[in-house]
Amino acid sequence: MAKKIWQTGANLDPEVEAYTVGNDYLLDQRLLPYDIAASEAQARMLKKIEVITATELKSLEAALAEILAKWKQGKFQIERNQEDGHTALEQFLTEKCGEAGKKIHTGRSRNDQALVMLRLFMKAEAIEMEKLVKGLISAFEAQAKRGKKIPLPGYTHTQKAMPTTVAIWLESFADALRDQLPFLAALRKLLNQNPLGSASGFGIPSFPLDRSFTTRELDFAKTQENPQYCGLSRGSFEYQFLATLSPIFLILSRFVNDLLLFTTQEFSYFSLPVNFTTGSSIMPQKRNYDLLEIMRANTNVFFARENEIRNILSSLISGYHRDLQLTKKSLIEGIDLAKATFSLATKIVKHLQPNEKRLKSAMSEDLFATEKVYELVKQGIPFREAYQQVKKEILG
Amino acid sequence: MAKKIWQTGANLDPEVEAYTVGNDYLLDQRLLPYDIAASEAQARMLKKIEVITATELKSLEAALAEILAKWKQGKFQIERNQEDGHTALEQFLTEKCGEAGKKIHTGRSRNDQALVMLRLFMKAEAIEMEKLVKGLISAFEAQAKRGKKIPLPGYTHTQKAMPTTVAIWLESFADALRDQLPFLAALRKLLNQNPLGSASGFGIPSFPLDRSFTTRELDFAKTQENPQYCGLSRGSFEYQFLATLSPIFLILSRFVNDLLLFTTQEFSYFSLPVNFTTGSSIMPQKRNYDLLEIMRANTNVFFARENEIRNILSSLISGYHRDLQLTKKSLIEGIDLAKATFSLATKIVKHLQPNEKRLKSAMSEDLFATEKVYELVKQGIPFREAYQQVKKEILG
Amino acid sequence: MAKKIWQTGANLDPEVEAYTVGNDYLLDQRLLPYDIAASEAQARMLKKIEVITATELKSLEAALAEILAKWKQGKFQIERNQEDGHTALEQFLTEKCGEAGKKIHTGRSRNDQALVMLRLFMKAEAIEMEKLVKGLISAFEAQAKRGKKIPLPGYTHTQKAMPTTVAIWLESFADALRDQLPFLAALRKLLNQNPLGSASGFGIPSFPLDRSFTTRELDFAKTQENPQYCGLSRGSFEYQFLATLSPIFLILSRFVNDLLLFTTQEFSYFSLPVNFTTGSSIMPQKRNYDLLEIMRANTNVFFARENEIRNILSSLISGYHRDLQLTKKSLIEGIDLAKATFSLATKIVKHLQPNEKRLKSAMSEDLFATEKVYELVKQGIPFREAYQQVKKEILG
Amino acid sequence: MAKKIWQTGANLDPEVEAYTVGNDYLLDQRLLPYDIAASEAQARMLKKIEVITATELKSLEAALAEILAKWKQGKFQIERNQEDGHTALEQFLTEKCGEAGKKIHTGRSRNDQALVMLRLFMKAEAIEMEKLVKGLISAFEAQAKRGKKIPLPGYTHTQKAMPTTVAIWLESFADALRDQLPFLAALRKLLNQNPLGSASGFGIPSFPLDRSFTTRELDFAKTQENPQYCGLSRGSFEYQFLATLSPIFLILSRFVNDLLLFTTQEFSYFSLPVNFTTGSSIMPQKRNYDLLEIMRANTNVFFARENEIRNILSSLISGYHRDLQLTKKSLIEGIDLAKATFSLATKIVKHLQPNEKRLKSAMSEDLFATEKVYELVKQGIPFREAYQQVKKEILG
Repeated sequence: MAKKIWQTGANLDPEVEAYTVGNDYLLDQRLLPYDIAASEAQARMLKKIEVITATELKSLEAALAEILAKWKQGKFQIERNQEDGHTALEQFLTEKCGEAGKKIHTGRSRNDQALVMLRLFMKAEAIEMEKLVKGLISAFEAQAKRGKKIPLPGYTHTQKAMPTTVAIWLESFADALRDQLPFLAALRKLLNQNPLGSASGFGIPSFPLDRSFTTRELDFAKTQENPQYCGLSRGSFEYQFLATLSPIFLILSRFVNDLLLFTTQEFSYFSLPVNFTTGSSIMPQKRNYDLLEIMRANTNVFFARENEIRNILSSLISGYHRDLQLTKKSLIEGIDLAKATFSLATKIVKHLQPNEKRLKSAMSEDLFATEKVYELVKQGIPFREAYQQVKKEILG
Repeated sequence: MAKKIWQTGANLDPEVEAYTVGNDYLLDQRLLPYDIAASEAQARMLKKIEVITATELKSLEAALAEILAKWKQGKFQIERNQEDGHTALEQFLTEKCGEAGKKIHTGRSRNDQALVMLRLFMKAEAIEMEKLVKGLISAFEAQAKRGKKIPLPGYTHTQKAMPTTVAIWLESFADALRDQLPFLAALRKLLNQNPLGSASGFGIPSFPLDRSFTTRELDFAKTQENPQYCGLSRGSFEYQFLATLSPIFLILSRFVNDLLLFTTQEFSYFSLPVNFTTGSSIMPQKRNYDLLEIMRANTNVFFARENEIRNILSSLISGYHRDLQLTKKSLIEGIDLAKATFSLATKIVKHLQPNEKRLKSAMSEDLFATEKVYELVKQGIPFREAYQQVKKEILG
Repeated sequence: MAKKIWQTGANLDPEVEAYTVGNDYLLDQRLLPYDIAASEAQARMLKKIEVITATELKSLEAALAEILAKWKQGKFQIERNQEDGHTALEQFLTEKCGEAGKKIHTGRSRNDQALVMLRLFMKAEAIEMEKLVKGLISAFEAQAKRGKKIPLPGYTHTQKAMPTTVAIWLESFADALRDQLPFLAALRKLLNQNPLGSASGFGIPSFPLDRSFTTRELDFAKTQENPQYCGLSRGSFEYQFLATLSPIFLILSRFVNDLLLFTTQEFSYFSLPVNFTTGSSIMPQKRNYDLLEIMRANTNVFFARENEIRNILSSLISGYHRDLQLTKKSLIEGIDLAKATFSLATKIVKHLQPNEKRLKSAMSEDLFATEKVYELVKQGIPFREAYQQVKKEILG
Repeated sequence: MAKKIWQTGANLDPEVEAYTVGNDYLLDQRLLPYDIAASEAQARMLKKIEVITATELKSLEAALAEILAKWKQGKFQIERNQEDGHTALEQFLTEKCGEAGKKIHTGRSRNDQALVMLRLFMKAEAIEMEKLVKGLISAFEAQAKRGKKIPLPGYTHTQKAMPTTVAIWLESFADALRDQLPFLAALRKLLNQNPLGSASGFGIPSFPLDRSFTTRELDFAKTQENPQYCGLSRGSFEYQFLATLSPIFLILSRFVNDLLLFTTQEFSYFSLPVNFTTGSSIMPQKRNYDLLEIMRANTNVFFARENEIRNILSSLISGYHRDLQLTKKSLIEGIDLAKATFSLATKIVKHLQPNEKRLKSAMSEDLFATEKVYELVKQGIPFREAYQQVKKEILG
């Protein structure tokens, strides 16, 4: 069994180990490249402040490159008894580089090692997210252009209300999404600060770490100076990441709900290509929009991920707690869900097929009642009287 | 690629397939034995109503037994392109039994096939859950007996209030848990009804299925007659399962929070064996109660699982929707979390080590202020006056 | 300003007072009769154990009767500076009965005073809730009888699936609700235990309270013996109350969502009387089902009430904390919402108007595809082949 | 009974009216000044496009000024049967101004009237919120300055870890809060667009409203052009408002949890002035930090408000639904909670009293173990070896 650095003489009770480690070692598998990148920066900084020699640095860089290469080929597997990626990495380095492998942990704790790994991951994902959202906006805009002249009944209370167009409807989502971009930019800014060097949340007061060196190496905009704030941001930044995406899910949920209604046989305003839909194992006539249903359900799954991070955090006092480990799974599941959803939504928008004939015939007279009222208003009749007059006409 | 029964000519778009299938095929891996058991009952029923012959039944029974045997050895793997366990099972049966394999789907849909599989799973897990909770109650009672004479400061507002004992404190959790048993019994009753034969939620009106036969075969207390109620119960029963466990998690959360406070160095009222605790990678002196922290966090993760099922359901109209598929993951994760947590909690209670010396010295005078008031009351002084008098004494 | 019994020399900072008291004094206004009833039982018990004399008891009973009478006339108002109903009640009793008024607090704390008040309230409301749910079940059953012969398209994926009837659809809700009754019975049992005498959660060890006397007086099934369990149940029982109603809200949400779809112009399967619906201030032709929309939204509001109690509790250690005060508002709002919703739902079911003509014409041929498959199956064709054959027919 | 503009011949069923109106008319009481301001802008615009005359405008302006004056004196009361503030306002105007009163509704619906009223309200509150957060940051900074030289044990896992200072601890919250300001700025930007003129979410296509005129009049940065986006933003912007405050509550929750631990008798690191704390009705010795407990609980109440808006919205299709009305209560309660909490938190920070003597004596030797390790590291011993060596020393 792999020996963890913090391990006391007694081996951890296996039930306790299984319960506390959970699937964290599997999640770290995904995050490993970010741990490697941060470890490289750490090694270079240690060379600069003369904790390790140039030769030791070379040895460490080679070993880290080797891990990355193995990882890319799917050959670097973190094992459960290693508990997490940090231990796996350290064991590999110690085997390959001897003393130097032990020295790389100088001035850092698993806390800031995890922090910087997750920070780099989130930074990369935040950029990806902005791209996806912009792509989605473009898809709505492009599809709206095509729908400029196609009428659409506008609904309030799920009852026909007034005329609108496919274009206006689609542009409303583009506008709503565009207004989310400043929040995504604020997120990117938040994430763009370097927590490496904060150690366990209290720094290494007497030790001459060069934090601004790793900040430059890792291309962060600034150093997150206060080590307790670094600690405080574990989990909180993960929460803020998902929280920033929630409004986007919420906007999409309206679009998805619209489509689920508009693709019923009774409405038949829109359809999606046949290879987007599924059938039934018992009812041979069915065309089902499962993808929209899964998107609707995933919206709630995503919100649950955000909430679980928040609830985990709100019970804590300052400083690291093992509870924080569990926010990793919520974050990764949330991010994956968001990327898959935004990407599929873009595809849906692109392939949306308005049923023009049906839409035109759905533009029934009652949709134009308000317009009639306003024609009377133009003739000088006060609005409220015009309203009552048209109402009387309609309801007989 | 495996051909799904409901499949239309066009192959499903790969992105759509990946998004809609998710990891459902992996979850079904776990549920397979219940699908096999229900399929056996289905086959026997079909023999009874003469849809299949005795020979066909034998062939099906043999094939189902073969799947089960393979599954036990970890050799029956559902593949992603099969989408779920039902398709995997049907393909195997068709290969092995030819016509008979095709006939087993007679009178059932994937909807009731999934329903009965999940129902059998939940029934078994509900029984397991009652055992675990009863074991936990016993542990609290046994530990309480040992703590009969050990004093404990009672707290309100996290401030010392009045004297209590380790026994009374531990028994309070036993009592609270015992009062949850009627809810668990109600859950077991709810689950004890057979949905097989409800097909897609509308039954097979013109077909002479013998639903009471499968009810007896599968040892259900009754048939869930109304097929739309069967449909309605997909997801809802999953929700009710987790909802019934939530109060238990909530009770435990108090115990866990107590322990997290009582094991700080400043309190030091209790400890757990050294092999239950972990150290730090940077602070050699640390003894951390990570297992309690993970329990605290998991409480919130569990609540999120319950909430996500509920939120998925509350958006739906009657009838099956693909959204419901996602409740499977929430259910299984929730059940696993509950079992691991209740089991570990039992272990913690059993190994709890009160620090008697420290507890005795913590019984400071202020804890007895109320008792002093009541001694004055016994002497005939009205309570409110006695209170003010003792207060004056204390605050000088 | 009213002087609180626990008050120290310094007056509480007004901002702190406003923040901590909140609207608790207004909520207690509603709960006062239960505080009065429990105080009467407390007074009689004190007489029995000879803390107060027969004359003092009479004086207290008269004063309590006076408060109740005033309250019924809306003339007993708890003031903000009294903080809560308990202080208001004690001040009144002290003014009216002198010494005896001070003595009634003997052996009880505001903690168990609040506990027993809320317990009596919840007990009464739980009984009311069962009545409402039974009434709702009857309404579904009665309306189902009327709809026996009215066909209804059955939907899966919001797409036409197979034929069903209005009766089966409505009975599915009756069945689902009936299966909730054992949980409501378990709730009633849980609530039927007397916490009075547990004082601040630690009892009054040296004082000869006769707890079984107040148990009988207040018609509880048993005494909640362990005083720390009494403390533990503050908030938890409130949570369990709402949690027991959540599945009922969830069942209703399906019905409400069905109706919101079935009352659109495009479906027009059902309608409600004109005086149940509203119009628009700008679109004279509109008939909106606002009541269903508010029910849909209130379902989420209710779930939020349940969640907020749970989240408040899960951060706490054992013993009373002021956090628990806030569960009162969530409980009362939740109960009021449930009663109004269940009552209105019953009314809606009673007045539901199926549009028979429209329903009949909606029974299109595709709904009978599965039946066609089964006719082929009866002729000996294996299900899967019959399925493909009918499918080919339909999709041409 | 007041006649609503949209009212049909039949009066609304009273139970339906009570259920749907709820307390909305009371909430509008608070929002009235914003409705008045927007109505003034609307009237001026109608004058500009010659729907009303200069005389009519003057009459309307006078009447609106009168309402505002009455409202300030608490004399303008919206009644339940008026349903909301918009009807109350229109009725007053019609009484006072005759025809002109009827005409003011020209080109607007209650939908955009509510939208613009809420938008102005939120805009004002967002500015207020930034002020409060900045004040809180300053309070943390100022208090940190005072605590520069006061040591504080740093905790991880609620166990003593490494030395820190009161200053670093307090500054960590200041830093975290400062990083929220860009999100608040993004919120202010989002809210700074004018929805007036979007009518029911579809505009008044044939009518020459001058939307940019009201945009200037109401000091919005731009017009929210797409009327369906205006509709989409009802509820969504309310959600985004609360969602933007949630991270702030989360940051504060850590501070509050820290204080609840640090003010226990066992820690006694900090205290608050005596007039911030409360006593007990039965335990004369108690000093309780109820205000911190209420803050902890309110954090969860706030999160529930955010969640309930989100869950209400995620069930909806595009267009107005009555569900949206209920987001008003959640918004207002959430905002009030935030303002009271941020303000009180500022006061708490300002009055925080570190117990220097106690803090100094709490700086036990074990806190310096890591520092010892690093002293060995400076002497050239690899970190991992130094760690094991110090560990051996400590644990003997």
